[in-house]
Amino acid sequence: MSAPIEFWFDFSSPYSYLASEKIEELAARYGRRVAFKPTLLGVIFRTTGGVPLTELVPPKSRYFVHDFERSARFTGVPFRQPSAFPISTVGAARAFLWLQSRDEAMALRFLHAAFRAYFAHDRSLAEPDVLAALAREVGADPAQMAQGMQEPAIKDRLKALVDESIARGVFGAPTIFVDGEMFWGHDRLPQVERWLATGPF
Amino acid sequence: MSAPIEFWFDFSSPYSYLASEKIEELAARYGRRVAFKPTLLGVIFRTTGGVPLTELVPPKSRYFVHDFERSARFTGVPFRQPSAFPISTVGAARAFLWLQSRDEAMALRFLHAAFRAYFAHDRSLAEPDVLAALAREVGADPAQMAQGMQEPAIKDRLKALVDESIARGVFGAPTIFVDGEMFWGHDRLPQVERWLATGPF
Repeated sequence: MSAPIEFWFDFSSPYSYLASEKIEELAARYGRRVAFKPTLLGVIFRTTGGVPLTELVPPKSRYFVHDFERSARFTGVPFRQPSAFPISTVGAARAFLWLQSRDEAMALRFLHAAFRAYFAHDRSLAEPDVLAALAREVGADPAQMAQGMQEPAIKDRLKALVDESIARGVFGAPTIFVDGEMFWGHDRLPQVERWLATGPF
Repeated sequence: MSAPIEFWFDFSSPYSYLASEKIEELAARYGRRVAFKPTLLGVIFRTTGGVPLTELVPPKSRYFVHDFERSARFTGVPFRQPSAFPISTVGAARAFLWLQSRDEAMALRFLHAAFRAYFAHDRSLAEPDVLAALAREVGADPAQMAQGMQEPAIKDRLKALVDESIARGVFGAPTIFVDGEMFWGHDRLPQVERWLATGPF
């Protein structure tokens, strides 16, 4: 089996959510696994001058919310623009990493449940209560998880991932690497698929 | 036959070029024609705070040039990043509009020839000599075209189109309207196709 596809995401990124619902199936069709890697767009934007899509001038911000919704329908994924957007995702990312350090399958269930909670059910991942409820939903102990999120090793792991993403030129999410080739945006999934099918093109 | 698809473009936009090579065939499959409408990203960006993709911070600008090239290969369209980029496209847009006022088919030949000249053969459309050569290539008289580009009616037509594009929320190119629905970017062609096939989704 070839190297896993790297999927860099932020839990507050709508297009990351859309792609997260498709990437594992796409990878599996080409005998690949997916390595999910959280990063923080808030930190990245400070180094690249990026701006959340909904904080652009009105013609753009209006279009992007419309595009989130239409792209979700196009992709066949439930979506409702969250009432709080964007949000801090440091906690959700640490929760994911802590779960991953103990149980990869549980971490993956958390990842998908968290994206859906935020983007389909308007549950803000910045709320500790929502993270605790998600822990229960995937079979983790909420108190243990809350404690785990504060472990220095987990905080350091997230910092290292954010630094790595910046060093590798990630400026938005999702960013997908296939054998070192970088693709930005859920709308590049057709090119990711071509790359998986034919190799470099 | 239903209303034409509106294709708003700037001759200096690589993704407009890629989409311009596909949109007529796509439209025809659904019994539609294409109304090509030039606008000026330089003017639009002044009102929306936009920046040419190659003038962003290095990790982004590098990625975008790579993405232009890879997207062109993905689309099956010849492409070479022009040595002068972006360029003023006021002249090329006026030339297109003047030709259009006299001979729609010739204007379309000019549009495709101009995009290919710039993005496949590194001929800068900001050079009067290049525009004159393109006039000859599509069967127009270069001296007449140069004169036509200076007509107040042609200048006013371009101004009116730029104003209309801004009023309708266009902030980048290509922007495609299908029955009033707005799609930004060549990577939304699959959604344009869905809309043509099924109507609103």
